[in-house]
Formats: sequence, C-alpha cells, structure tokens
Amino acid sequence: MERVSLLTDVRRSNDEIAAENQEVLRSTATLTINLMSAPGAGKTTVLENTIRRLSPRYRFAVIEGDLQTSIDSERILVLGVPAHQITTGTVCHLDARMVAKAIAQFPPQRVDMLFIENVGNLVCPAEFNLGEDLRVMVYSVVEGEEKPKKYPLMFHKADAVLLNKIDLVPYGRVELGALKKNVVEVNPHAAIFPLSCRTGEGIETWSQWLAAQVEAHNLATAKS
Amino acid sequence: MERVSLLTDVRRSNDEIAAENQEVLRSTATLTINLMSAPGAGKTTVLENTIRRLSPRYRFAVIEGDLQTSIDSERILVLGVPAHQITTGTVCHLDARMVAKAIAQFPPQRVDMLFIENVGNLVCPAEFNLGEDLRVMVYSVVEGEEKPKKYPLMFHKADAVLLNKIDLVPYGRVELGALKKNVVEVNPHAAIFPLSCRTGEGIETWSQWLAAQVEAHNLATAKS
Repeated sequence: MERVSLLTDVRRSNDEIAAENQEVLRSTATLTINLMSAPGAGKTTVLENTIRRLSPRYRFAVIEGDLQTSIDSERILVLGVPAHQITTGTVCHLDARMVAKAIAQFPPQRVDMLFIENVGNLVCPAEFNLGEDLRVMVYSVVEGEEKPKKYPLMFHKADAVLLNKIDLVPYGRVELGALKKNVVEVNPHAAIFPLSCRTGEGIETWSQWLAAQVEAHNLATAKS
Repeated sequence: MERVSLLTDVRRSNDEIAAENQEVLRSTATLTINLMSAPGAGKTTVLENTIRRLSPRYRFAVIEGDLQTSIDSERILVLGVPAHQITTGTVCHLDARMVAKAIAQFPPQRVDMLFIENVGNLVCPAEFNLGEDLRVMVYSVVEGEEKPKKYPLMFHKADAVLLNKIDLVPYGRVELGALKKNVVEVNPHAAIFPLSCRTGEGIETWSQWLAAQVEAHNLATAKS
C-alpha cells in the first residue's frame, strides 16, 4: 500500500500540486502573481518599478525562474525584497512542484504580494498553473501587433496584459490601437495597461490596479 | 516481427528522423536553415529582406512554424516564394517529424535554400534538430544584453546570430558591444551580424555571408 501511495505521490498532477500551493498561500493571505512574458519583454524591470512604487505600503517577495543565472533575483534583493531563484536548467517553464519546493524554503509569511517571475517564454508557461491568484503578462510592443493571434493561450489566460516599452512606439512599426484590438479579440476580459519603465508612463495606473487587487484579496481571505 | 518494426518506427528518435531529413535535403543540394528566435524578434521580416536581396539569384522555399495562424506563410507567398505552414497547436517548437511530413508534401527540388522558420521561443526549439545544415538565430537587441547568459543553449548552438533592430539601440538601454561580448562568451564560433530591417543596415553583409554558405554547400554536395 505504501508503495502505491508513493507512486501516486510521484505522479500527482501539476494541477493537484498547484491547488496545494494556492491553499498554503491563501492561508497567509498572500496575493500570488504569475508573471509571464517572452524573453526580454521587461518582467524584472516592471517588478522593480512596481516594488519601488508600492513598498513599503505592501510587503513583497519574489520567486525568480530562469534557465540559468541568478541575475534577476540579485536585482530584486538589492531593493531589500526577499527573492528566491529557481534555475530550471533546460526546462522551459516553471511548474507547481518547483514552486512548492521554493515556498517550503522561502515561506511567504507576512508578505502581501508574492510575484513568481516565470521563465521567459510566450508558450509553455501558460500551460502550467502554479497556484497563483493572478496571471499577469508583460508584452513588449516591439514584438509586433499580431502576436496575440499567434500565441493565443498566454494572452487568453491573462488577467492583466502590460504593454511595455511604449516609449519605443514612435521608432517602431507597431500601432498601439491595433495591438490592443488584437489582445481584446483573444481576451476581452484582460485589463490592459500600456506602460514604459523607461519614462514611467503608465506605472502608476498599473500599480493602483495591483493595489486594488491586494485589497480585494485581503477582504476575500479576511487577513488578520 | 512486423509489430516490433511498427513500434520501432513510432518510437524513432527525433535525431534519427532529422538525419533522414538531412539526407533527403542534401540529395537535392538544398541548404537548409533552421531560423530561430524569441517571439517578435523579426524572423519573418529578416526572411523577407533576405529573399528580396538574394532572389532571383538563388531559389528559396520556406516552411513556417507557428502555434496558430498562417500570417507568416502568407507574407512569404506574396514574394513569389513557395511557403508551407505548419501549425503546431500548443507545441512550442518544430520537431523533425513535422518537418519530414512538410518536406513530403512540399518537395524542395530546384531550391537552393530552404528556410525553416521555427516557433518563436528562445528555449525549446534549440533542443530539436530538424535536419538543418545551419542554425541561424535572430535576436532583437531590445530584449537586453544579458539574454545570451540566461538562455545559453540556443546561442551556443547557433552558426550565426543576427542582432536585429539595431535602429532602436539609441532609444533603449542596450549597449551593442556588451551584448556582442555576451554572445561571444556563450558561443565564440558564431558569426554575428548586427542589422536593421527598418533601415537596411547590415542586410547586405548577412546576405553575402549566406550566399557564401550556399556556394560552399553546392561545392560540398556537388550540385549538378
């Protein structure tokens, strides 16, 4: 019987482990955000700007997922925010088991927001629930107008889409209205925030939205 | 025995099928290029520019890999170049079996260069040999300086790295010299071509390099 249980444990599905992660994180009323994007869209820079805007009002923690290096977690640590690096080797996305291990080593107690910065990949991370409350996607407008149609799953599942690097719109070939229209076609429910970490445009609105999500989550989970 | 053969066939590895693809493609002296990048780095635009520069001197064909849509193959077809679209659904990379099927339907006879534009993903495509002669990577400089270290496999395996969108360097935070240095650290053997499809800078040098590869390949395969 024990052998069977062990096998069962090993084979537990990603969704089962994700549900456990969510239970653990909700028990401490931590709002957990799975932050996803293609490589180089600016996830870490968005995080830095968000942390600067919203701390110390809110307490942050960050789990960083990368194939290699701890460059990103080091960028978060210098802001005085606890950060835990997961290096996946060749695995192209985080999964719930990796996050479960990270949470065990890195308890999210007394944290209002836990950001999980996924591996930079516009495909695979969208298929793996980590136990998050919100899925937020960063999209660099330089990647073009048509990508929501070509990579629909991640856009479809996002609660919010941050259209980053809008300071580059005048120098590129992307028309912001057309890009937004494509996002809305794939996901009419996502909140869309055009922003630029370089000029600061849009950071305030996105941060306010995020703060409202924390407040709503605290009310829903009746944080003490 | 037959049953065993069938099973063996189903289980044939990606590398075995890739080797067969290469044999088929070399029999017609077609230089095959696996074109890889993150989403939105500009693979199709590079292809358009390359085709415009090098045809009709060389005859092209293109296999397009995307999760969804035939946007990219339509862009190639209007140039008068045969294009075959593979839509992978949720699969985050092309594999040798998909390419084998495409080649069967889309014979590369009388073609000097077959470009296989992979799914936009900086991780998974690097692990799957398709039977190509060359691996060429397009990297948008807007994605940042440190990505070669964070996504080493694709950079490591590339024969050429095209640093695209250099027209945006003055408006971004990337220093081209630092980016090149990071590419060289991961792959000292790759040919590196900074270019801009917007201004045309660098397209000529890259095209000349590619033409030289075709000439070398023709000599090596003794094309009639």
